[in-house]
Amino acid sequence: MAHALGLARRGLGRVWPNPAVGCVIVKEGRVLGRGWTQPGGRPHAETVALAEAGAAARGATVYVSLEPCAHHGKTPPCVEALIAAGVARVVSALEDPDARVAGRGHAMLRAAGTAITTGVMAAEAAALQKGFLNRVRLGRPMVTLKLATSLDGRIATASGESQWITGPEARAKVHAMRAAHDAVLVGAGTARVDDPTLTVRGLGVTHQPVRIVAARTLDLPADGNLARTAREVPLWLLHGPVAPEARRAHWASVGARLIECAETPDGLDPAVMLATLGLTGLTRVFCEGGGQLAAALLKADLVDELALFSAGLALGADGRAAIGGLGLARLASAPRLRLVSTSAHGPDLLSLWSRD
Amino acid sequence: MAHALGLARRGLGRVWPNPAVGCVIVKEGRVLGRGWTQPGGRPHAETVALAEAGAAARGATVYVSLEPCAHHGKTPPCVEALIAAGVARVVSALEDPDARVAGRGHAMLRAAGTAITTGVMAAEAAALQKGFLNRVRLGRPMVTLKLATSLDGRIATASGESQWITGPEARAKVHAMRAAHDAVLVGAGTARVDDPTLTVRGLGVTHQPVRIVAARTLDLPADGNLARTAREVPLWLLHGPVAPEARRAHWASVGARLIECAETPDGLDPAVMLATLGLTGLTRVFCEGGGQLAAALLKADLVDELALFSAGLALGADGRAAIGGLGLARLASAPRLRLVSTSAHGPDLLSLWSRD
Repeated sequence: MAHALGLARRGLGRVWPNPAVGCVIVKEGRVLGRGWTQPGGRPHAETVALAEAGAAARGATVYVSLEPCAHHGKTPPCVEALIAAGVARVVSALEDPDARVAGRGHAMLRAAGTAITTGVMAAEAAALQKGFLNRVRLGRPMVTLKLATSLDGRIATASGESQWITGPEARAKVHAMRAAHDAVLVGAGTARVDDPTLTVRGLGVTHQPVRIVAARTLDLPADGNLARTAREVPLWLLHGPVAPEARRAHWASVGARLIECAETPDGLDPAVMLATLGLTGLTRVFCEGGGQLAAALLKADLVDELALFSAGLALGADGRAAIGGLGLARLASAPRLRLVSTSAHGPDLLSLWSRD
Repeated sequence: MAHALGLARRGLGRVWPNPAVGCVIVKEGRVLGRGWTQPGGRPHAETVALAEAGAAARGATVYVSLEPCAHHGKTPPCVEALIAAGVARVVSALEDPDARVAGRGHAMLRAAGTAITTGVMAAEAAALQKGFLNRVRLGRPMVTLKLATSLDGRIATASGESQWITGPEARAKVHAMRAAHDAVLVGAGTARVDDPTLTVRGLGVTHQPVRIVAARTLDLPADGNLARTAREVPLWLLHGPVAPEARRAHWASVGARLIECAETPDGLDPAVMLATLGLTGLTRVFCEGGGQLAAALLKADLVDELALFSAGLALGADGRAAIGGLGLARLASAPRLRLVSTSAHGPDLLSLWSRD
């Protein structure tokens, strides 16, 4: 199963709206087939592994990181393929919460005489497939918030200088993390100040995540990097009802996808934004700030994972804060996260924190 | 030598103004004697180890984390004792920069026919004995700055609530770190807001570090925890020339030691403060904030080590900053530190950073 989860990881960021699944077929101690969900979400992992194993799959054990699908979607159900191949046993990590599966995959296999074991490495599989599980269960993608700060939580000097707080190794890691998400999200302030491209660069990666900007009034650089590349790499703009018609027309004309969201007196409602993104099928969103968007997501308890890059320098109270105001009266009401792991990237420290 | 350094570590915080030294005596693969600098700074490590080895030390090899002393201080020089014991070889990590030794210890041993090897694990020994080395070379103690912050570098909510951001495991680690320093230092603001005791508690430690408050005008709670305990645990107050006579008299009457320091327009000059503390013999100072003192020390490039406890919560830009304003115009002028290690303490992350 650990091997299947390792294979599943390869699909992260490129299989939405589907889950990134891994599958290993074993008989008499030998691996006969391995598969993972292919870019775009199909073929499924089981299909790939069964093709590799061929006729030898008869009587084999299949390890799969999620319950095999039982419904006719764009491909025939994996359950039928597994039964047809005559495998003896299926070991899965998790039941698929999709209402079209939800235990039916396991039940159909059992009815066909296949031995079933479920719940193997369930916690690890749930962490890996959190994006898909969140989309199905909560109707929204998982959110990873990335911050790159000084030791005292600052992202720019008092004068606004921010490039570069972290070093090239940390920035390369950020590009790898972008590639493992379906979309990259920033606020309009960051888009105006940094004029970012938000693409994955320098890793030989051909696939690019969707780029999303939360821009209530669509006040973005009309001929900036995002505008210039909107036909090459998808650019989605989340805006409020107040966005002027002329700006809507401009951004539509350069190739951006415009998505209108309800707003609150504080701006775009982050829960509505994410629910809207959930409807598009996105499962994993990588938010890179700025401070106001980070604060809005944290206040709404919508940050599932925090990736905090800490550079070995201090910028002081007059530097720009990584997270905007949270208006907390009490420590007890602060958003809390659990430490998952730490790693060094060049001179910088990456600590990963999880909401649960 | 690794064993000798481990023994040396036991003396940290309780041997000032002397260095914390470790010594191991070995013959034919057997450890005959072990010693470390005793509380108060004597007997020296070599004396303790030679006493344990007794007559068997003849012909043995002595591993010692610092060059043996060559001068008659409060005890006869260790070099004479080593020669008298007839040891065959001395392996040391570092030359003692004290002008009364400075290579003379090694030279006297060599002249007496003892084989000498120096520089073994020199970097590790220099890190461990940084407090003593700084006092002798720079005329000031080493400074460890401890911060306990949210993930975004805050030490209190907007409303001022700060207890407790980190958990009991992290607080226990802080007490252990206090015990390994000669003195604990805080600013007057922290003393007023937190009314701390600044003692080592809950570890079965009988020794207490000196408690120091940087209080320019001596504006401190006249009957707070520090005042009440000043006769039990040393309390030193660093104040400016402007401190009113009545306050000086009050604090002297409760048993505090008053130390006047020159000041700049920004307040007490941190370089002068530390030079003054260096003259008292202190080698290791543990600064626990607050934000203004932390900023002053960082701006003056006087922080040798940073111990950053990060709790898994966010407090937002309206929370109180761990480090006051630094007035940095450029990223390039920010104080920089190198990542040394990370460890988890309950739910909190401790990252250690070093100035060099």
